[in-house]
Amino acid sequence: MKLNIAVLPGDGIGPEVTAQAVKVLKAIAMEYNHVFTFNNALVGASAMDATGIPLPEETISICDKADAILFGAIGHPKYDDDPSATVRPEQGLLGLRKTFDLYTNIRPVIAYEDLLNKSSLKIKQIKGTNILIYRELASGIYFGEKNFSNDEASDVCAYKRTEIERIAHLAFKAAQGRKRKLTLVDKANVLASSRLWRTVVNEIASEYPDVTLDCMYIDNAAMELIINPCQFDVILTENMFGDILSEEASVIVGSIGLLASASIGNKHAMFEPIHGAYTKATNKGIANPIASILSAAMLLDHFGLYDEAALIREGVDKSLKLHITTPDLNTKYDNISTSKVGDFIEDFINNPDETNLN
Amino acid sequence: MKLNIAVLPGDGIGPEVTAQAVKVLKAIAMEYNHVFTFNNALVGASAMDATGIPLPEETISICDKADAILFGAIGHPKYDDDPSATVRPEQGLLGLRKTFDLYTNIRPVIAYEDLLNKSSLKIKQIKGTNILIYRELASGIYFGEKNFSNDEASDVCAYKRTEIERIAHLAFKAAQGRKRKLTLVDKANVLASSRLWRTVVNEIASEYPDVTLDCMYIDNAAMELIINPCQFDVILTENMFGDILSEEASVIVGSIGLLASASIGNKHAMFEPIHGAYTKATNKGIANPIASILSAAMLLDHFGLYDEAALIREGVDKSLKLHITTPDLNTKYDNISTSKVGDFIEDFINNPDETNLN
Ligand SMILES: CC(C)[C@H](C(=O)O)[C@@H](O)C(=O)O
Ligand SMILES: CC(C)[C@H](C(=O)O)[C@@H](O)C(=O)O
Repeated sequence: MKLNIAVLPGDGIGPEVTAQAVKVLKAIAMEYNHVFTFNNALVGASAMDATGIPLPEETISICDKADAILFGAIGHPKYDDDPSATVRPEQGLLGLRKTFDLYTNIRPVIAYEDLLNKSSLKIKQIKGTNILIYRELASGIYFGEKNFSNDEASDVCAYKRTEIERIAHLAFKAAQGRKRKLTLVDKANVLASSRLWRTVVNEIASEYPDVTLDCMYIDNAAMELIINPCQFDVILTENMFGDILSEEASVIVGSIGLLASASIGNKHAMFEPIHGAYTKATNKGIANPIASILSAAMLLDHFGLYDEAALIREGVDKSLKLHITTPDLNTKYDNISTSKVGDFIEDFINNPDETNLN
Repeated sequence: MKLNIAVLPGDGIGPEVTAQAVKVLKAIAMEYNHVFTFNNALVGASAMDATGIPLPEETISICDKADAILFGAIGHPKYDDDPSATVRPEQGLLGLRKTFDLYTNIRPVIAYEDLLNKSSLKIKQIKGTNILIYRELASGIYFGEKNFSNDEASDVCAYKRTEIERIAHLAFKAAQGRKRKLTLVDKANVLASSRLWRTVVNEIASEYPDVTLDCMYIDNAAMELIINPCQFDVILTENMFGDILSEEASVIVGSIGLLASASIGNKHAMFEPIHGAYTKATNKGIANPIASILSAAMLLDHFGLYDEAALIREGVDKSLKLHITTPDLNTKYDNISTSKVGDFIEDFINNPDETNLN
């Protein structure tokens, strides 16, 4: 298969982790005789530093021509110092999501057997957790009208029925291929937008009689996710609640450095770790590349390259089992760097049966 | 002291738990020669069943004349079935918060030594946690303009500078009497309203040079609250984020049945457990009354009755130590009911030195 991949490393640890994902994708291309081409482009604070704007036209054009976008991370503390600034790195990421209408963000949350003891949660609590979070990504309070003055500020959270329908169908279909349970998370006891979500999702549910639909308030979900994560199969929710829940869910997995995501539109798709730029760790070799590498696996799945994706995941599993991990996860070795983890998974792909600690 | 207390038991388990708080307040009045009078009033689904509306005029008038409001819980699943209904039980609670401008909601999160093993989190993670959440309660997306149609719905999250200032001062002052650390939780990388919060709170910080101010994004805070709760002292945040974080924080304490809150305005104050109506448990005698009883202790603190409040808290500690608790916490005895817990704490107040398991 030929794939043209736009690579947007972005800020902070973005470039280091993305480099490992590219390394792994190149190994896959080699092994399976695919032709993957990679085109780099600027986004975020690094784009602002170079061009003054967080999402340059050239980046949009490179992404538009690509089959998929591999994204790193975004943000820099220097832009947090002035909360009244109107141009911000994050607009690069939000601009991509909006421009390419990437309305479905999929975030898997899996408790890896080899990492159960790394979580802040008790092992019996999390064992077996396997959740797929479907977060609406192109609407809601992120993109509603904003007003900001010295005395008052506001954001609008608006949803159209059609915006709810399109992601709801995808979430129900995902549930059909899994444990057939869908949990809608909202705040329908307070928000009008949540009441529309509940109305629409309840209607659509009748088309998926094999899927059990549950509704849960966001405050309650934030608690249930910790005390009983195994109750969830697919979680469907709006943009802001999905942001909060998915980062919270990283505590189940043991490190946010493991959480991958896919952002899917009708024509475009972007793949990115859910962690941020983590500027303090930049260029120290301590950033965990697994979230980015697993995002590359989601990219391959998206194009039907299931064996290839599975091989990457096997490589990740093996790296976890053998403690070839960055310090956020490692209690055995203290000097395994970002690129060493990438190298290990690359070696595994080249030679699945022989890779061992060397 | 004379105190006129409006008692609003509300729905579900509200009446049972509130009855225990009243029992305990009566014991305190007796012991310390105070005159507490209690006036009951309807609110929520039970008010709708009786009068058609969730917050009857008579209830408002009783609360208006009272020195303090003791609130139970609100909500009933029968009103969740029709998400397009425009009259809802929750409007009773939101109406009270708005009518009496109860803008500061204070929610303590304390990891009790005797309950460390009840939490879903590892003991070493939570030991020593003592957080005070300051949640803005009278503005934000809860009270902004709402639109609802079959095709589209929206909510507005708006904040005025003055609304941020008044709670921020209270939060800084609270931090001064504690570990002198304040964490502002917002989403300033996306929301205009959050950027105003950050601007205003940063400005006010200069008046409290002895307090260290930290800013954290809500998604990150939802994770940090679990992996490192001890880093927090006072958390300050807007209405919706406070709703989510405070319920999530219950996992640290071990049961949501332990979390009390105070909602303070300039003229009025309301005290309520943070748990909801939990309709399924109604009249089974299994509802944990401690959150309501601790809310009564916050009521006494509010009027400067610190010794009285401390005595209630001692009674609660003793009930936890001796396993005189409802089934949500109890692994030793399986038949300790809601009212037995209330009785135990009442007995303790009457006779602090002699109460033991009997
Ligand atoms: C960087 C930020 C704008 C972004 C979001 O809030 O969506 C991030 O937290 C994420 O979850 O992808
Ligand atoms: C019942 C509901 C409206 C309420 C809220 O969202 O504020 C509750 O969750 C709370 O936290 O007091």
